[in-house]
Parts: sequence; structure tokens; C-alpha cells
Amino acid sequence: MPVYKAPLREYRFLLHETFNMSQYAALPGFRDAPLDVVDAILDEAAKLSEEVLQPLNQIGDREGCKLENGVVTTPKGFREAYKTLVEGGWPALVADPAFGGQGLPNALGVIFNEMVSSANMAFGMYPGLSHGAYSALLHHGTEEQKKTYLPKLVSGEWTGTMNLTEPHCGTDLGLLRTKAVPQADGSYRITGTKIFISAGEHDLADNILHLVLARVEGAPQGIKGISLFLVPKYLLKDDGSLGARNGVSCGAVENKMGIHGNATCVLNYDEATGFLVGEENKGMRAMFTMMNEARLGVGLQGLSQSEAAYQNAAAYAKERLQGRSLTGPKAADKPADPILVHPDVRRMLLNAKAFNEGARALLVWTALQGDLSHASDDATVREFADDMMALLTPVVKAHLTDRGFANAVEAQQVYGGHGYIEENGLAQFVRDARIAMIYEGANGIQALDLVGRKLAANGGRAVFAFFKRVDDFLAEAGKTEKLAPFVVALSAARKDLEAATMWFMENALQNPDNAGAGSTDYLHLFGVTAVTFMWSLMAKAALEKLDGAAEDKSFYETKLKTGLYYVERVAPETALYLARIRIGAAPLMAFGADEF
Amino acid sequence: MPVYKAPLREYRFLLHETFNMSQYAALPGFRDAPLDVVDAILDEAAKLSEEVLQPLNQIGDREGCKLENGVVTTPKGFREAYKTLVEGGWPALVADPAFGGQGLPNALGVIFNEMVSSANMAFGMYPGLSHGAYSALLHHGTEEQKKTYLPKLVSGEWTGTMNLTEPHCGTDLGLLRTKAVPQADGSYRITGTKIFISAGEHDLADNILHLVLARVEGAPQGIKGISLFLVPKYLLKDDGSLGARNGVSCGAVENKMGIHGNATCVLNYDEATGFLVGEENKGMRAMFTMMNEARLGVGLQGLSQSEAAYQNAAAYAKERLQGRSLTGPKAADKPADPILVHPDVRRMLLNAKAFNEGARALLVWTALQGDLSHASDDATVREFADDMMALLTPVVKAHLTDRGFANAVEAQQVYGGHGYIEENGLAQFVRDARIAMIYEGANGIQALDLVGRKLAANGGRAVFAFFKRVDDFLAEAGKTEKLAPFVVALSAARKDLEAATMWFMENALQNPDNAGAGSTDYLHLFGVTAVTFMWSLMAKAALEKLDGAAEDKSFYETKLKTGLYYVERVAPETALYLARIRIGAAPLMAFGADEF
Repeated sequence: MPVYKAPLREYRFLLHETFNMSQYAALPGFRDAPLDVVDAILDEAAKLSEEVLQPLNQIGDREGCKLENGVVTTPKGFREAYKTLVEGGWPALVADPAFGGQGLPNALGVIFNEMVSSANMAFGMYPGLSHGAYSALLHHGTEEQKKTYLPKLVSGEWTGTMNLTEPHCGTDLGLLRTKAVPQADGSYRITGTKIFISAGEHDLADNILHLVLARVEGAPQGIKGISLFLVPKYLLKDDGSLGARNGVSCGAVENKMGIHGNATCVLNYDEATGFLVGEENKGMRAMFTMMNEARLGVGLQGLSQSEAAYQNAAAYAKERLQGRSLTGPKAADKPADPILVHPDVRRMLLNAKAFNEGARALLVWTALQGDLSHASDDATVREFADDMMALLTPVVKAHLTDRGFANAVEAQQVYGGHGYIEENGLAQFVRDARIAMIYEGANGIQALDLVGRKLAANGGRAVFAFFKRVDDFLAEAGKTEKLAPFVVALSAARKDLEAATMWFMENALQNPDNAGAGSTDYLHLFGVTAVTFMWSLMAKAALEKLDGAAEDKSFYETKLKTGLYYVERVAPETALYLARIRIGAAPLMAFGADEF
Repeated sequence: MPVYKAPLREYRFLLHETFNMSQYAALPGFRDAPLDVVDAILDEAAKLSEEVLQPLNQIGDREGCKLENGVVTTPKGFREAYKTLVEGGWPALVADPAFGGQGLPNALGVIFNEMVSSANMAFGMYPGLSHGAYSALLHHGTEEQKKTYLPKLVSGEWTGTMNLTEPHCGTDLGLLRTKAVPQADGSYRITGTKIFISAGEHDLADNILHLVLARVEGAPQGIKGISLFLVPKYLLKDDGSLGARNGVSCGAVENKMGIHGNATCVLNYDEATGFLVGEENKGMRAMFTMMNEARLGVGLQGLSQSEAAYQNAAAYAKERLQGRSLTGPKAADKPADPILVHPDVRRMLLNAKAFNEGARALLVWTALQGDLSHASDDATVREFADDMMALLTPVVKAHLTDRGFANAVEAQQVYGGHGYIEENGLAQFVRDARIAMIYEGANGIQALDLVGRKLAANGGRAVFAFFKRVDDFLAEAGKTEKLAPFVVALSAARKDLEAATMWFMENALQNPDNAGAGSTDYLHLFGVTAVTFMWSLMAKAALEKLDGAAEDKSFYETKLKTGLYYVERVAPETALYLARIRIGAAPLMAFGADEF
């Protein structure tokens, strides 16, 4: 049976000791989260995750969601767990106080979500998607819509969904066919089929608010003719209570590789009543609001499965007795040594551990930038924060999910044959993690977003701001001898990243395929550089603690060793990415379609 | 619904045009396989795979194997398919003519097995394991045992299994507890529990021959006290017909991540009658005979899933219309371009295609060396062949399965969300491929075998022979200008491999953990170098054809482009592996157990 223990000490190290969250104590949101409150919240979240959600993870995988007569039943225990989540007020954590939210920073939100997702990724998607719907309504809904619907999403009484994909279109939403016909009362009749709708139908909440992309009759072709609609499962009576069932029904629950506990639905809209959100034909803008937040949320899913898988593999490697160390017996009193004595087992574990801690720092730092982009009273800070949030969102989404999956696979490998047996739980981490590389924009799309859109925005302002932040750190850190391995690695990675960026500037304008061919390499080059930067910040914080009269010295010593592992063994990948980027598109585009 | 088409043209290119199999026409085995016979055999094997086995692949995954009252039922259609396989004489393909075999080279055997495994990996394991049992009996059984049992294995009337693993021991067989008590009649009573026994119990054949590792009462501790026994499911009467049911029963069928169509069994031995194979306490030697052959067979499973997944992803990328090329519409008459226009989609497909073709060459070349190590009348050739077979077996096993799995994952990615839906079949390729990295010695064990045993054997004779063969090729190929990119890449890879080998020689003696820490990197460094060598041989063959008055020019042109992709985009990985190897064990061993 797999286990999960929330890494609370890690969160405290990041929030308090690395990013010094108390420096923002005067800002909205942060003001309500002094350090002791933060700690108390995280402790409670850990309990919820470890004691309520994690025990349901394998049950959810085994039972899946069942569709009978249009009704979807979630796995045993999910209803009660969702009730506990709602009663604890968790859906309100980072929501706007105007609608019942607690208004805490999203840096805390992503930490909460990492715990929930590590404990039970499929379950975490139900409140996760509600939050996406909440964001779209908050930013684009009318005052009336917000007043009517947001409090219910914030309390968790109702859940939400995002309806983009249709059978013939996913990435290219311009092709979508779901149509909306305006009615005399200002509402629309929505008709069409949506697929892959996570949490699309279930028995956890009284109502479901579907946010649906559709094309108003007569609207332009392509993405310029797409509008966003709110389609509640149950329409509301004038007093706000639940009225008639709307014309949306679940046609099927998909049989997927993983996240069986989440109902992935085909939703059929048959003249369903929908309400326009934002302006007609401006649906894509509203959808992007939802997607950017959702992408950080998917990035953390990759991390979450890597963390859960790592914890179990590390425990297994300490327990499993098999063979002897290459340098002579280490547990001579036992029939064999624990497999943790083997360097290659440590390699697999440390790949995950060093990644998890660095990636978590990047996730929290990015979310913090998202918070500062709204909350800061300094325009320079807001601009930088906004730039980082935009630039790093695709990096967090794709780098954390590609690596998170790979780490789950390596953790499974530590278990040997036992990792392939479902009851041990490692296979589920791998199967669940796999989806995060695909949904909310497949990772190849994230890479294109990074090189095609984010790099170029505002004349490259964001990427140069990133370099400058790194350079400022390097100039300062160069004075600390003990930081030398980090300074060396970060300088090298930064140099490779800059060279790759320049290469695109010189070669992608004339032939955009040169950007496409190197996009995934560039994304991971960026990811490794950003994580190396995070490790450098953490190493600095750890060294300062060790130089002071720190308690808990062993924590900081381990932190430094883990960072050294990352910068020595992982950071050198950047040279390979750069070499591949410089090859350009020619070897890829030389093939005709019939040569595949 | 997934499809599969056997790559017959590829096999012909390898056997006839790259490795010039006709040069061995005078040797035993090869003598019976003139080119037209080989082609006819491969055509028939393709039909069997495409028409009989592939259509059962998803059924097998969905239904799995069921255990009821000790009887295991295989998925619908498996019995009939197995009958077809037996009637076609396929289990006899590479078996000894003295026992009813056709005696053909194993180079043909691995090609047959690749097709079967691409079509239906779970099914292919039933005859695959029989062949392992056949090998152990052939090399270590008494004349009486061979005469009694081999013809039934060769015909496929009976199947075989390998019983190594116990709940508390897998890699470290020295810990095994299954005991054997000698009886007055020369037989033994076997008692114990074996787990993870592939094809351990099923309804395909009349009898199952279990080859079981056990410890004779009073034998030494550890691997020096292990013996190999033959334990038939049904004992034989004096006339050779089936007699009493033996004391072995299936206690459970494991619920696994994949290969559901193969029954992975817990086998309980309760005073079962067993017959010693080989000498008492020499069971490990006999087991290694089985395992070396089996490891090539597992390597090809990695390739097989990569090939099947690639074929489907390539077809999907040509059909799926979504978005437009970065360089302007390519299918302006359609609502969108096929996603094959995108460089990043091509990257995923070409990673698989270039790997598959190069890895297949390595597989066939290695199997051919295995053939020559027995069949050649030249002692120098036999020594070289034997060295290559030993050296490359762990490389083929681990490199082909690690990469094969990664390619299946990338092929799944090409499908976007549709890749995560089970009915489209891509998830199954990923789930099935996953086991090949684990069983027959987890890939980390292969890496240790390579650096700890194979490199050092005979004073490094094998690896130096490999370098010499590469150097001979480079000296010759250096004269051909069109081979320049291959010569450059192969020289660079070879240099990195040599530097890594030297680094081990200088640093691993004093601290074996330095070899362990770099072992997996070294294995892949070797794999990439070997595949680069294979691509160089194929490029040379293709260029010769193009320079001549070849028909089928487009085949050779595509071959060259695919090879260029590999040497330009994949081969440069060797520098990263070398850099990591040179870091050594320190960053891994610096951690105490409580720091994980």
C-alpha cells in the first residue's frame, strides 16, 4: 500500500527561508497570511491529504466512475471526502473575499494543490476545475453572474468544468462546431458535443457550472468567432434555488489509462440554455484566463506524482534487502543489504528528489509572481512579476509534467517487478502522471507558446528580465565561495539559454520551422536553467542558515547536497539541448509525408 | 483501432543488403536459409502477425487472464491463435533439428519474434518462454530428458516457464528458499512459492514444463547452493503420455499494469516431483544460459512496442487535421493541415523511426553474432562473435527497452488526448512496453552486468574488439565523402565511449561505486554508439545501392535521411553521458539513508 507524507518542512523552507514571504506582509492577500497562520493552514491541509484523500487514491483507480442512466457515480468515499473538503472551506482558500473567499495568495494555493494532488490526483481535479470556472467568471462575468454563481463555486457547493475539446478539434479550437443560437430573453441555445470533459458529470455537488466554448450563429469562422457560455446543469429559479434540468447530458465516461477516479465525460448539449460570459466572439480571451491558471495547476500535478512516487520508492529502497554493496556488505547482520546502497538506485531516487525540490521552488516562485503581479504596489515589481508568470507558465506546465512522469517511471523501476503490480501503487502514479503531459495544451504546444509567443512578447522583455535577475544573483553570489558550484552551473546554463535564444532570433524569423524544431529542447533548456536558478537561491538560503546558529542543521546540509546533485548531474543537460536547437529544422523537414 | 504492418522491406534491407547474409551460406543453419526461403518465411510470419495475432492484442488487454478453481483461462481467441502458431511449425523455427526443429539462424528468430511481439506482446510471451525452457534443457539436460521433453517444446504442444523469483528475492537469487528433497528414485520433492511466473498456468497447451530454481536440502547458502529442476505440470507415464497432475498449482494471477493477455502467476510448489537439470548446485549456470537468450528477446520487446506505436502515430499524424504549418498552409483545401507539418510532431515520430531502424539492425547483428559464435568454421570469427554477443546482450536488453518505452510514450503524445483513451491502443503499447525495462534483470542490473562483468572479461577483449571493428569501418568509410556525417558522428561517439571506458579503468578499481554511479549512463552511451555504428553500416549499404542502378531509390534515400536524423540529433547525447560518468559516485554516496 502506497503512503504519502506532506513535505511540510520543504514548504516552510521555501516560503519562510528562501522567498521570505514576510517581506510582502503589507500587501493584500499576504496581509491575511502571517507565518503562523500559513503554518497552521499547511498543517491542516496535510492532514486532509494524508488522512482523507490518500486512502481513497487506489480505490478511485480501481473503481473508476460509472455511468448509468445518465447518472455518474464517483468511487466509494469520494462523496464523503468532497463533503469534508467543502466543510473545511478549502475551495475558498485563494478565492476573492467579495464572494466568500479567504483571499490568500496563490503561492499558498499551489502548495495546497500539490498536497491534494500527491494524495489523490483524480480527486483533486474536481475542485481544481471548479477553480478554473471560478476564474473565468470572476474576470469576464457580469456583476449579476458573479453574484449568482461565484459564492457557490467558492464554497464548493457547486463545481465547474471547462468545455473546449470536440471530437475533431482540440489544439485548434478554431475548428469547433458547437453552436449557440441567441434567444429573445438574452440567453442562447447551445447545441453540440464536447469530449474529454474532466469532472463533467458526477455526484459530488448539487449543481455543475459548465463553461462552454461555442460559435454564435453567423459568427466568423475560426477562433475569431468563438464565444464563452455558462451552461448550468440545473437552471436556477428566480430565488436562486435549483430549477429545471438543462439540456446537457453525459453521453459516456471515457475508459482512460489513468485518473480513473475523475469522470472524463462526453457531454452532449441539446439546445441547452447558456449565458454569454464576456463579449460575443471574445471567448478565446476568456478561455486563456482559465487556461493560464490551469496550466500551473497541471504542472503541479506532474510534480505531485513525482513526489508521491519518490516517497514510496525511497521507503522501498531502504526496506528491500537484495544483494550486497559493491564496496562490501553494509548490513552484515542481515541476509542482504538494502538496495539503497547501490549508486544506480540512488541515481533514480536523487533524480526525483533533486527535481522535486527544485521544481517545487519554481512552482511556488512562479505562483508568487502571479500574486505580486496583482498585489504589489510597485509598478516595476508588477511588470516583472507579470512577465515571469507569462514566460514561466508553459515551462512549469511542460517541464514539470515531462520530468514528473519520468521520475514516476524511475520510482516504479526501483520496485523492480513489484512496481508493475497494480496493488503496490507505483503503476498508478505513472498512469495518472501521464495525462498531465497531454491536457491543458499538450507539452509540444507549451513549447510553441514559449518560443512563438512568450519569447517575442514586448520585444523579448520577459526573457531579458529573467536573465537580468539571474545576473544580479550571480554577481552577488559570486562573492560567496561555498556557492561556487551553483554559480558555475547557473552561469553555464544561463549562457546556453542565451545562446539558444539568440539562435532563434537569428534563424526563426526567416524560417519559423527552426523555432518549431527546437521548441521542446528550448523548453527543457529553460526548465533546467530555471530550476538551477531555484537551487541556487535555496543553496544560498541553506548556507546562510548553516553559517548562523541554525537549529535543524542536518536539514540544510541535506538541502545543499541535493542541490549539488542537481547542478552537477542534471544542469549539464543544457549543452545537449543547445546543440540540438542549433541543428535547426532541415533534418526534420527533409521527409515527405509518405516517408513516415 | 490500432494497426500493424510488418516492416518486411526493412528486414530484407538488413539481411540481404546490409549484413549480406548470403556470405554465410555454407555454414550450418544458414545453409537451410537461402534468400528466397528467408523471404518466404518472413512473408508468412508477417501474415500470422498481422492477421491472426494483432487483432487479438486489445482483446487480450481488456479481458486478461482469469483464474478459477486453479484453472487459468486466456483471453478469447488466444487458444485458436496458439493452435495456428503450432500448426504453422513456428515454435520449431530456430530449434535443433535433432529434436524436430528447423535449425534456422537466430537472426531470423529475432525477426520473427519482433513481428509477433509488435502484433501482440502478451501472446508472444507464451512461445517465448517455451524457448527459454528449451534452451536450458538443450544445454544442460540429460540425453533422456532431451529426448523426452524437447520434441514437445519444439512442436509447441507443450510450453515452458522459468521460475526464479520469490516474494523476498528477485535480483539476489542467493536468498531463495524453495527447497528440494532428494528421493530414492533420483527425483526430488520441490516445495516453495515462486512469483511473477510469466505463462505460469494457462489453457493453451496440454502440459507445462516448469524450470525451477531451488535449494537441495543441506546445500550451501547463497547462489552456490542453487540447483535447477524440471517440474512438469503433468508427470509422464512410462509411454510418455500424460499421467498424474504434479504438486504445482497457480495461487494467483497478478493484476499488472500491462501484458494482461499473459498470465503472470504465483506458483505454489507443494512436494512437487522435480528432476534435476545439470548438476546439483550448478543451477545458476544453467539459468544464465536461459537468461542470455531471453534478454535479447526482451530487448526486442522494447523495439516491438516502439515500432507498433510509431506506425500508428505516423498514420494519425497524417490524418489528424489541426492548425496550420508555421510556414503557411500546406493543405489549403482542407480546414486545417495534418499535424505532420509541425516540426515538433516530426521530432517525436523521427525519434522513434530512427531508433527503431537502428536498434533493429543492432538486434539482428547481435543475434547474427550469436549464430556465428556456434556456426562459423573460423576460430577468430567465433571468438569475436562470442565476445560481441556477451558484450551487447545487456546493451540490447536495456537500451532497446528504455528507448522503446520512451518512444511509445512519445507516439502516445502525438495522439494528444486521444492517446490517453484506452480504445485507441496507444496506452496499451506504453503499459506493455513498461515491463520490458524490468523483467529478465532490471535495466540497472543490465548496466551493472555491462560495466562490472562484460567490460572486464578477458582483460577487456570484447570492448577492444568492438573498437577495432569500428575503427576498421571508419578507416574504410573515411574515403567515401558522402559518408562524412556518419564518420564524424561515429568517431565522436566512439571517442566518448573509449574515454568513459578508460575512466572506469582508472577510477572503478579503487572504488567500485564509481562504476555503479555511471553504469546506466555508460550503457546508453554504448547503446547510442552501437546504434550509430549500425546506422553507418546501413548508410554505406544505401549509398552503394544509390550509386548503382538501384530500383527502389526512394527507399534508400529515406534510409539515408533517417540515418542523418539519428547521427545529427541523437548521437550527440554521448557527450552528456560521458560528462555524467566522470562525476563519479561522490554526489550519490554523500547521502545517509535518513536523508532520502
